Amino acid sequence: MPAFLPNETDLYAITDARLCRGRPLADVARALLDAGVRILQYREKKLKAGKMLEECRLLRRMTLEAGACFIVNDHIDIALLVEADGVHIGQEDLPVPEARRLMGQQAIIGLSTHTPEQAVAAVAAGADYIGVGPIFATQTKEDVVAPVGCAYLDWAARNRALPFVAIGGIKEHNIGEVARHGAYCCALVSELVGALDIAAKVAAVRRAMHA
Amino acid sequence: MPAFLPNETDLYAITDARLCRGRPLADVARALLDAGVRILQYREKKLKAGKMLEECRLLRRMTLEAGACFIVNDHIDIALLVEADGVHIGQEDLPVPEARRLMGQQAIIGLSTHTPEQAVAAVAAGADYIGVGPIFATQTKEDVVAPVGCAYLDWAARNRALPFVAIGGIKEHNIGEVARHGAYCCALVSELVGALDIAAKVAAVRRAMHA
Repeated sequence: MPAFLPNETDLYAITDARLCRGRPLADVARALLDAGVRILQYREKKLKAGKMLEECRLLRRMTLEAGACFIVNDHIDIALLVEADGVHIGQEDLPVPEARRLMGQQAIIGLSTHTPEQAVAAVAAGADYIGVGPIFATQTKEDVVAPVGCAYLDWAARNRALPFVAIGGIKEHNIGEVARHGAYCCALVSELVGALDIAAKVAAVRRAMHA
Repeated sequence: MPAFLPNETDLYAITDARLCRGRPLADVARALLDAGVRILQYREKKLKAGKMLEECRLLRRMTLEAGACFIVNDHIDIALLVEADGVHIGQEDLPVPEARRLMGQQAIIGLSTHTPEQAVAAVAAGADYIGVGPIFATQTKEDVVAPVGCAYLDWAARNRALPFVAIGGIKEHNIGEVARHGAYCCALVSELVGALDIAAKVAAVRRAMHA
Protein backbone atom coordinates (compact mmCIF):
# COMPACT_ATOMS: atom_id res chain seq x y z
CA MET A 1 0.00 0.00 0.00
CA PRO A 2 1.37 3.42 -0.89
CA ALA A 3 1.93 5.89 1.90
CA PHE A 4 -1.19 7.76 2.82
CA LEU A 5 -0.56 11.28 1.74
CA PRO A 6 -3.04 13.69 3.32
CA ASN A 7 -0.26 14.45 5.77
CA GLU A 8 1.74 16.02 2.97
CA THR A 9 1.03 19.21 1.16
CA ASP A 10 -0.44 18.34 -2.20
CA LEU A 11 -3.49 17.83 -4.33
CA TYR A 12 -6.10 15.09 -4.02
CA ALA A 13 -7.78 14.45 -7.37
CA ILE A 14 -11.36 13.20 -7.66
CA THR A 15 -12.87 11.88 -10.87
CA ASP A 16 -16.17 12.84 -12.49
CA ALA A 17 -16.69 11.46 -15.98
CA ARG A 18 -19.26 14.15 -16.73
CA LEU A 19 -16.62 16.85 -16.36
CA CYS A 20 -13.86 15.22 -18.43
CA ARG A 21 -14.80 16.95 -21.70
CA GLY A 22 -15.55 13.61 -23.32
CA ARG A 23 -12.04 12.28 -22.83
CA PRO A 24 -11.69 8.64 -21.67
CA LEU A 25 -11.21 8.39 -17.91
CA ALA A 26 -7.97 6.48 -18.47
CA ASP A 27 -6.48 9.43 -20.37
CA VAL A 28 -7.50 11.87 -17.67
CA ALA A 29 -6.13 9.63 -14.92
CA ARG A 30 -2.91 9.14 -16.87
CA ALA A 31 -2.45 12.91 -17.16
CA LEU A 32 -3.06 13.37 -13.43
CA LEU A 33 -0.65 10.63 -12.43
CA ASP A 34 1.98 11.84 -14.90
CA ALA A 35 1.64 15.28 -13.34
CA GLY A 36 2.57 13.70 -10.03
CA VAL A 37 -0.80 13.52 -8.33
CA ARG A 38 -0.47 10.82 -5.69
CA ILE A 39 -4.03 10.45 -4.42
CA LEU A 40 -6.83 9.62 -6.80
CA GLN A 41 -10.41 9.08 -5.73
CA TYR A 42 -12.91 7.43 -8.06
CA ARG A 43 -16.24 9.18 -7.61
CA GLU A 44 -18.95 8.52 -10.17
CA LYS A 45 -22.51 9.02 -9.06
CA LYS A 46 -24.29 8.22 -12.29
CA LEU A 47 -22.80 4.97 -13.55
CA LYS A 48 -23.95 1.40 -13.05
CA ALA A 49 -21.81 -0.80 -10.82
CA GLY A 50 -20.60 -3.01 -13.67
CA LYS A 51 -19.10 -0.03 -15.48
CA MET A 52 -17.67 1.34 -12.24
CA LEU A 53 -15.97 -1.98 -11.53
CA GLU A 54 -14.36 -1.92 -14.98
CA GLU A 55 -13.08 1.62 -14.53
CA CYS A 56 -11.85 0.98 -11.01
CA ARG A 57 -9.89 -2.06 -12.17
CA LEU A 58 -8.16 0.14 -14.70
CA LEU A 59 -7.46 2.95 -12.22
CA ARG A 60 -6.22 0.47 -9.63
CA ARG A 61 -3.66 -0.82 -12.13
CA MET A 62 -2.60 2.67 -13.12
CA THR A 63 -2.30 3.97 -9.56
CA LEU A 64 -0.30 0.91 -8.49
CA GLU A 65 2.13 1.47 -11.36
CA ALA A 66 2.41 5.14 -10.43
CA GLY A 67 2.82 4.42 -6.71
CA ALA A 68 -0.31 6.42 -6.04
CA CYS A 69 -3.07 5.90 -3.52
CA PHE A 70 -6.44 4.78 -4.91
CA ILE A 71 -9.64 5.53 -3.02
CA VAL A 72 -13.14 4.51 -4.11
CA ASN A 73 -16.07 6.72 -3.20
CA ASP A 74 -19.00 4.99 -1.42
CA HIS A 75 -18.84 1.58 -3.10
CA ILE A 76 -17.21 -0.72 -0.58
CA ASP A 77 -18.00 -3.80 -2.64
CA ILE A 78 -16.12 -2.37 -5.60
CA ALA A 79 -13.24 -1.20 -3.39
CA LEU A 80 -12.92 -4.76 -2.08
CA LEU A 81 -13.01 -6.33 -5.54
CA VAL A 82 -10.28 -4.09 -6.99
CA GLU A 83 -8.25 -4.02 -3.75
CA ALA A 84 -8.35 -0.25 -3.52
CA ASP A 85 -6.31 1.40 -0.78
CA GLY A 86 -9.46 2.68 0.79
CA VAL A 87 -12.91 4.19 0.57
CA HIS A 88 -14.31 7.62 1.09
CA ILE A 89 -17.79 7.84 2.55
CA GLY A 90 -20.28 10.55 3.45
CA GLN A 91 -22.30 11.23 6.56
CA GLU A 92 -25.30 9.32 5.17
CA ASP A 93 -23.39 6.39 3.72
CA LEU A 94 -22.51 3.20 5.59
CA PRO A 95 -21.06 4.17 8.99
CA VAL A 96 -17.29 4.07 9.46
CA PRO A 97 -17.28 1.01 11.78
CA GLU A 98 -19.28 -0.98 9.20
CA ALA A 99 -16.95 0.16 6.43
CA ARG A 100 -14.02 -0.89 8.60
CA ARG A 101 -15.59 -4.28 9.24
CA LEU A 102 -15.78 -4.96 5.51
CA MET A 103 -12.56 -3.25 4.42
CA GLY A 104 -10.26 -4.44 7.19
CA GLN A 105 -7.80 -2.70 9.49
CA GLN A 106 -5.27 -1.81 6.78
CA ALA A 107 -7.69 0.08 4.58
CA ILE A 108 -7.88 3.86 4.52
CA ILE A 109 -11.30 5.14 5.45
CA GLY A 110 -12.07 8.77 4.78
CA LEU A 111 -15.24 10.50 5.94
CA SER A 112 -16.76 13.74 4.71
CA THR A 113 -17.43 16.14 7.59
CA HIS A 114 -19.03 19.55 7.69
CA THR A 115 -18.77 20.55 11.35
CA PRO A 116 -16.33 20.19 14.25
CA GLU A 117 -18.83 17.83 15.91
CA GLN A 118 -18.69 15.54 12.90
CA ALA A 119 -14.88 15.67 12.97
CA VAL A 120 -14.82 14.61 16.61
CA ALA A 121 -17.29 11.80 15.84
CA ALA A 122 -15.11 10.71 12.91
CA VAL A 123 -12.15 10.24 15.23
CA ALA A 124 -14.26 8.21 17.64
CA ALA A 125 -15.60 6.08 14.78
CA GLY A 126 -12.12 5.21 13.57
CA ALA A 127 -11.83 7.20 10.35
CA ASP A 128 -8.30 7.63 8.97
CA TYR A 129 -8.87 11.08 7.55
CA ILE A 130 -11.70 13.53 7.13
CA GLY A 131 -12.88 15.70 4.31
CA VAL A 132 -13.41 19.27 5.51
CA GLY A 133 -15.92 21.25 3.52
CA PRO A 134 -17.49 22.21 1.29
CA ILE A 135 -15.26 25.27 1.61
CA PHE A 136 -16.93 27.07 -1.29
CA ALA A 137 -20.11 26.50 -3.28
CA THR A 138 -19.77 23.70 -5.81
CA GLN A 139 -21.84 22.37 -8.67
CA THR A 140 -20.06 19.02 -8.78
CA LYS A 141 -22.25 17.15 -6.32
CA GLU A 142 -26.01 17.20 -6.47
CA ASP A 143 -26.79 16.54 -2.84
CA VAL A 144 -24.06 18.72 -1.44
CA VAL A 145 -24.48 20.53 1.87
CA ALA A 146 -24.20 24.33 2.10
CA PRO A 147 -20.64 25.70 2.03
CA VAL A 148 -19.03 25.95 5.45
CA GLY A 149 -16.54 28.62 4.33
CA CYS A 150 -13.15 28.83 5.99
CA ALA A 151 -14.42 28.84 9.59
CA TYR A 152 -14.57 25.05 9.91
CA LEU A 153 -11.29 24.86 8.01
CA ASP A 154 -9.69 27.12 10.62
CA TRP A 155 -10.98 24.81 13.33
CA ALA A 156 -9.66 21.71 11.53
CA ALA A 157 -6.25 23.33 11.08
CA ARG A 158 -6.06 24.15 14.79
CA ASN A 159 -7.41 20.78 15.97
CA ARG A 160 -5.51 18.22 13.98
CA ALA A 161 -7.14 15.17 15.50
CA LEU A 162 -7.02 13.55 12.07
CA PRO A 163 -5.38 14.30 8.74
CA PHE A 164 -7.81 16.34 6.72
CA VAL A 165 -8.49 17.16 3.13
CA ALA A 166 -10.08 20.49 2.26
CA ILE A 167 -12.76 20.09 -0.39
CA GLY A 168 -15.55 21.91 -2.18
CA GLY A 169 -15.24 24.53 -4.89
CA ILE A 170 -11.46 24.74 -4.63
CA LYS A 171 -9.88 26.21 -7.80
CA GLU A 172 -6.61 27.72 -8.89
CA HIS A 173 -7.91 31.19 -8.01
CA ASN A 174 -8.86 30.41 -4.40
CA ILE A 175 -6.54 27.58 -3.32
CA GLY A 176 -4.04 30.14 -1.98
CA GLU A 177 -6.68 31.37 0.45
CA VAL A 178 -7.49 27.78 1.47
CA ALA A 179 -3.80 27.08 2.09
CA ARG A 180 -3.45 30.25 4.15
CA HIS A 181 -6.26 28.94 6.37
CA GLY A 182 -4.17 25.88 7.13
CA ALA A 183 -5.15 23.36 4.47
CA TYR A 184 -2.23 21.25 3.28
CA CYS A 185 -4.08 18.64 1.23
CA CYS A 186 -6.71 20.00 -1.14
CA ALA A 187 -9.23 17.96 -3.11
CA LEU A 188 -10.25 19.20 -6.53
CA VAL A 189 -12.69 17.74 -9.03
CA SER A 190 -13.74 19.91 -11.98
CA GLU A 191 -10.65 22.14 -11.82
CA LEU A 192 -8.41 19.15 -12.56
CA VAL A 193 -10.37 16.59 -14.58
CA GLY A 194 -12.04 19.38 -16.56
CA ALA A 195 -8.82 21.19 -17.48
CA LEU A 196 -7.90 21.31 -21.16
CA ASP A 197 -4.23 20.86 -20.26
CA ILE A 198 -4.20 18.79 -17.07
CA ALA A 199 -0.41 18.88 -16.58
CA ALA A 200 -0.34 22.67 -16.87
CA LYS A 201 -3.34 22.99 -14.56
CA VAL A 202 -1.79 20.77 -11.87
CA ALA A 203 1.37 22.86 -12.01
CA ALA A 204 -0.57 26.13 -11.86
CA VAL A 205 -2.74 24.96 -8.95
CA ARG A 206 0.34 23.86 -7.04
CA ARG A 207 2.00 27.24 -7.62
CA ALA A 208 -1.13 29.03 -6.47
CA MET A 209 -1.30 26.82 -3.39
CA HIS A 210 2.20 27.76 -2.33
CA ALA A 211 2.06 31.43 -3.35
CA MET B 1 -30.55 -20.20 5.91
CA PRO B 2 -34.16 -20.75 4.93
CA ALA B 3 -34.89 -22.95 1.97
CA PHE B 4 -34.67 -21.11 -1.29
CA LEU B 5 -38.19 -20.92 -2.49
CA PRO B 6 -38.34 -20.00 -6.18
CA ASN B 7 -38.80 -23.70 -6.77
CA GLU B 8 -42.17 -23.53 -5.09
CA THR B 9 -45.27 -21.86 -6.36
CA ASP B 10 -45.68 -18.62 -4.51
CA LEU B 11 -45.14 -14.89 -4.39
CA TYR B 12 -41.83 -13.02 -4.16
CA ALA B 13 -42.35 -9.61 -2.56
CA ILE B 14 -40.12 -6.64 -3.35
CA THR B 15 -40.08 -3.43 -1.32
CA ASP B 16 -40.33 0.13 -2.57
CA ALA B 17 -40.78 2.74 0.14
CA ARG B 18 -42.25 5.21 -2.35
CA LEU B 19 -45.20 2.88 -2.98
CA CYS B 20 -46.02 2.04 0.64
CA ARG B 21 -48.60 4.83 1.09
CA GLY B 22 -46.51 6.45 3.78
CA ARG B 23 -46.60 3.40 6.04
CA PRO B 24 -43.35 2.43 7.80
CA LEU B 25 -41.50 -0.27 5.92
CA ALA B 26 -41.53 -2.45 9.06
CA ASP B 27 -45.34 -2.43 9.08
CA VAL B 28 -45.52 -3.36 5.41
CA ALA B 29 -42.96 -6.13 5.84
CA ARG B 30 -44.78 -7.42 8.91
CA ALA B 31 -48.04 -7.62 6.95
CA LEU B 32 -46.33 -9.47 4.09
CA LEU B 33 -44.65 -11.97 6.40
CA ASP B 34 -47.82 -12.47 8.43
CA ALA B 35 -49.59 -13.21 5.15
CA GLY B 36 -47.11 -16.01 4.61
CA VAL B 37 -44.81 -14.44 2.04
CA ARG B 38 -41.53 -16.34 2.29
CA ILE B 39 -39.24 -14.35 0.02
CA LEU B 40 -38.67 -10.67 0.59
CA GLN B 41 -36.33 -8.54 -1.47
CA TYR B 42 -35.22 -5.12 -0.25
CA ARG B 43 -35.07 -2.84 -3.24
CA GLU B 44 -34.76 0.88 -2.62
CA LYS B 45 -33.23 2.96 -5.37
CA LYS B 46 -33.49 6.39 -3.79
CA LEU B 47 -32.16 6.04 -0.26
CA LYS B 48 -28.69 6.65 1.13
CA ALA B 49 -26.71 3.60 2.21
CA GLY B 50 -26.86 4.46 5.91
CA LYS B 51 -30.64 4.42 5.87
CA MET B 52 -30.69 1.24 3.76
CA LEU B 53 -28.42 -0.52 6.25
CA GLU B 54 -30.78 0.41 9.08
CA GLU B 55 -33.82 -0.90 7.22
CA CYS B 56 -32.07 -4.07 6.10
CA ARG B 57 -31.04 -4.84 9.67
CA LEU B 58 -34.68 -4.62 10.66
CA LEU B 59 -35.92 -6.74 7.75
CA ARG B 60 -33.18 -9.31 8.35
CA ARG B 61 -34.40 -9.73 11.92
CA MET B 62 -38.03 -9.96 10.85
CA THR B 63 -37.41 -12.45 8.04
CA LEU B 64 -35.28 -14.65 10.30
CA GLU B 65 -38.06 -14.74 12.87
CA ALA B 66 -40.57 -15.57 10.14
CA GLY B 67 -38.33 -18.22 8.58
CA ALA B 68 -38.35 -16.21 5.36
CA CYS B 69 -35.63 -15.64 2.80
CA PHE B 70 -34.13 -12.12 2.70
CA ILE B 71 -32.54 -10.83 -0.48
CA VAL B 72 -30.91 -7.41 -0.92
CA ASN B 73 -31.03 -5.70 -4.30
CA ASP B 74 -27.69 -4.52 -5.71
CA HIS B 75 -25.93 -3.59 -2.48
CA ILE B 76 -23.52 -6.41 -1.75
CA ASP B 77 -21.82 -4.47 1.03
CA ILE B 78 -25.14 -4.10 2.85
CA ALA B 79 -26.07 -7.73 2.19
CA LEU B 80 -22.79 -8.78 3.80
CA LEU B 81 -23.24 -6.51 6.82
CA VAL B 82 -26.75 -7.77 7.64
CA GLU B 83 -26.02 -11.37 6.63
CA ALA B 84 -28.79 -11.46 4.07
CA ASP B 85 -29.51 -14.80 2.41
CA GLY B 86 -28.49 -13.33 -0.91
CA VAL B 87 -28.45 -10.52 -3.41
CA HIS B 88 -30.33 -9.78 -6.58
CA ILE B 89 -28.41 -7.99 -9.31
CA GLY B 90 -29.10 -6.63 -12.76
CA GLN B 91 -27.32 -7.01 -16.08
CA GLU B 92 -25.34 -3.79 -15.52
CA ASP B 93 -24.52 -4.35 -11.86
CA LEU B 94 -21.48 -6.19 -10.55
CA PRO B 95 -21.11 -9.45 -12.50
CA VAL B 96 -22.27 -12.69 -10.86
CA PRO B 97 -18.75 -14.12 -10.33
CA GLU B 98 -17.69 -10.94 -8.50
CA ALA B 99 -20.86 -11.01 -6.42
CA ARG B 100 -20.12 -14.65 -5.61
CA ARG B 101 -16.53 -13.80 -4.64
CA LEU B 102 -17.78 -11.31 -2.07
CA MET B 103 -20.90 -13.16 -0.90
CA GLY B 104 -19.52 -16.68 -0.68
CA GLN B 105 -20.70 -20.05 -1.95
CA GLN B 106 -23.70 -20.31 0.36
CA ALA B 107 -25.30 -17.06 -0.69
CA ILE B 108 -28.21 -16.91 -3.12
CA ILE B 109 -27.42 -14.83 -6.16
CA GLY B 110 -30.27 -13.83 -8.43
CA LEU B 111 -29.81 -12.12 -11.77
CA SER B 112 -32.34 -10.18 -13.82
CA THR B 113 -32.52 -11.49 -17.38
CA HIS B 114 -34.50 -10.34 -20.39
CA THR B 115 -33.59 -12.84 -23.09
CA PRO B 116 -32.83 -16.57 -23.41
CA GLU B 117 -29.20 -15.62 -24.15
CA GLN B 118 -28.94 -13.84 -20.83
CA ALA B 119 -30.50 -16.84 -19.08
CA VAL B 120 -27.90 -19.17 -20.58
CA ALA B 121 -25.14 -16.74 -19.57
CA ALA B 122 -26.59 -16.59 -16.04
CA VAL B 123 -26.24 -20.35 -15.68
CA ALA B 124 -22.64 -20.19 -16.88
CA ALA B 125 -21.86 -17.35 -14.50
CA GLY B 126 -23.15 -19.28 -11.51
CA ALA B 127 -26.40 -17.52 -10.68
CA ASP B 128 -28.78 -19.41 -8.37
CA TYR B 129 -31.95 -18.08 -9.97
CA ILE B 130 -32.96 -15.65 -12.64
CA GLY B 131 -35.57 -12.97 -12.91
CA VAL B 132 -37.56 -13.35 -16.13
CA GLY B 133 -39.10 -10.15 -17.39
CA PRO B 134 -40.34 -7.54 -17.44
CA ILE B 135 -43.41 -9.51 -18.46
CA PHE B 136 -45.59 -6.40 -18.65
CA ALA B 137 -44.88 -2.66 -18.66
CA THR B 138 -44.10 -1.33 -15.20
CA GLN B 139 -43.68 2.11 -13.65
CA THR B 140 -41.82 0.81 -10.62
CA LYS B 141 -38.30 0.95 -12.00
CA GLU B 142 -36.94 3.99 -13.79
CA ASP B 143 -34.33 2.32 -15.94
CA VAL B 144 -36.40 -0.68 -16.82
CA VAL B 145 -36.02 -2.43 -20.16
CA ALA B 146 -38.96 -2.84 -22.55
CA PRO B 147 -41.47 -5.57 -21.62
CA VAL B 148 -40.59 -8.96 -23.05
CA GLY B 149 -44.17 -10.22 -22.84
CA CYS B 150 -44.85 -13.92 -22.30
CA ALA B 151 -42.60 -15.19 -25.10
CA TYR B 152 -39.43 -15.24 -22.97
CA LEU B 153 -41.49 -16.60 -20.09
CA ASP B 154 -42.60 -19.51 -22.31
CA TRP B 155 -38.95 -20.19 -23.13
CA ALA B 156 -37.95 -20.07 -19.44
CA ALA B 157 -40.76 -22.45 -18.51
CA ARG B 158 -39.64 -24.93 -21.18
CA ASN B 159 -35.91 -24.60 -20.43
CA ARG B 160 -35.62 -24.81 -16.70
CA ALA B 161 -31.88 -24.46 -16.49
CA LEU B 162 -32.36 -22.40 -13.35
CA PRO B 163 -35.21 -21.60 -11.00
CA PHE B 164 -36.86 -18.44 -12.26
CA VAL B 165 -38.99 -15.66 -10.95
CA ALA B 166 -41.39 -13.91 -13.28
CA ILE B 167 -41.35 -10.15 -12.76
CA GLY B 168 -42.58 -6.89 -14.20
CA GLY B 169 -46.07 -5.42 -14.04
CA ILE B 170 -47.57 -8.54 -12.48
CA LYS B 171 -50.86 -7.80 -10.70
CA GLU B 172 -53.87 -9.66 -9.39
CA HIS B 173 -55.64 -9.23 -12.74
CA ASN B 174 -52.87 -10.75 -14.89
CA ILE B 175 -51.04 -13.21 -12.62
CA GLY B 176 -53.34 -16.02 -13.82
CA GLU B 177 -52.08 -15.50 -17.35
CA VAL B 178 -48.47 -15.49 -16.11
CA ALA B 179 -49.05 -18.74 -14.22
CA ARG B 180 -50.66 -20.33 -17.30
CA HIS B 181 -47.44 -19.53 -19.19
CA GLY B 182 -45.50 -21.62 -16.70
CA ALA B 183 -44.46 -19.16 -14.00
CA TYR B 184 -44.53 -20.67 -10.52
CA CYS B 185 -42.80 -17.92 -8.55
CA CYS B 186 -44.01 -14.40 -9.27
CA ALA B 187 -42.41 -11.19 -8.03
CA LEU B 188 -44.66 -8.24 -7.25
CA VAL B 189 -43.81 -4.78 -6.03
CA SER B 190 -46.53 -2.12 -6.13
CA GLU B 191 -49.39 -4.65 -6.10
CA LEU B 192 -48.31 -5.91 -2.67
CA VAL B 193 -46.54 -3.09 -0.81
CA GLY B 194 -49.03 -0.56 -2.19
CA ALA B 195 -52.15 -2.51 -1.18
CA LEU B 196 -54.41 -0.92 1.40
CA ASP B 197 -55.05 -4.34 2.95
CA ILE B 198 -51.90 -6.35 2.35
CA ALA B 199 -53.19 -9.61 3.85
CA ALA B 200 -56.31 -9.50 1.68
CA LYS B 201 -54.26 -8.63 -1.39
CA VAL B 202 -51.80 -11.51 -0.86
CA ALA B 203 -54.74 -13.89 -0.53
CA ALA B 204 -56.45 -12.49 -3.63
CA VAL B 205 -53.27 -12.62 -5.72
CA ARG B 206 -52.66 -16.22 -4.66
CA ARG B 207 -56.21 -17.16 -5.61
CA ALA B 208 -55.83 -15.47 -8.97
CA MET B 209 -52.52 -17.25 -9.52
CA HIS B 210 -54.10 -20.65 -9.02
CA ALA B 211 -57.38 -19.92 -10.77
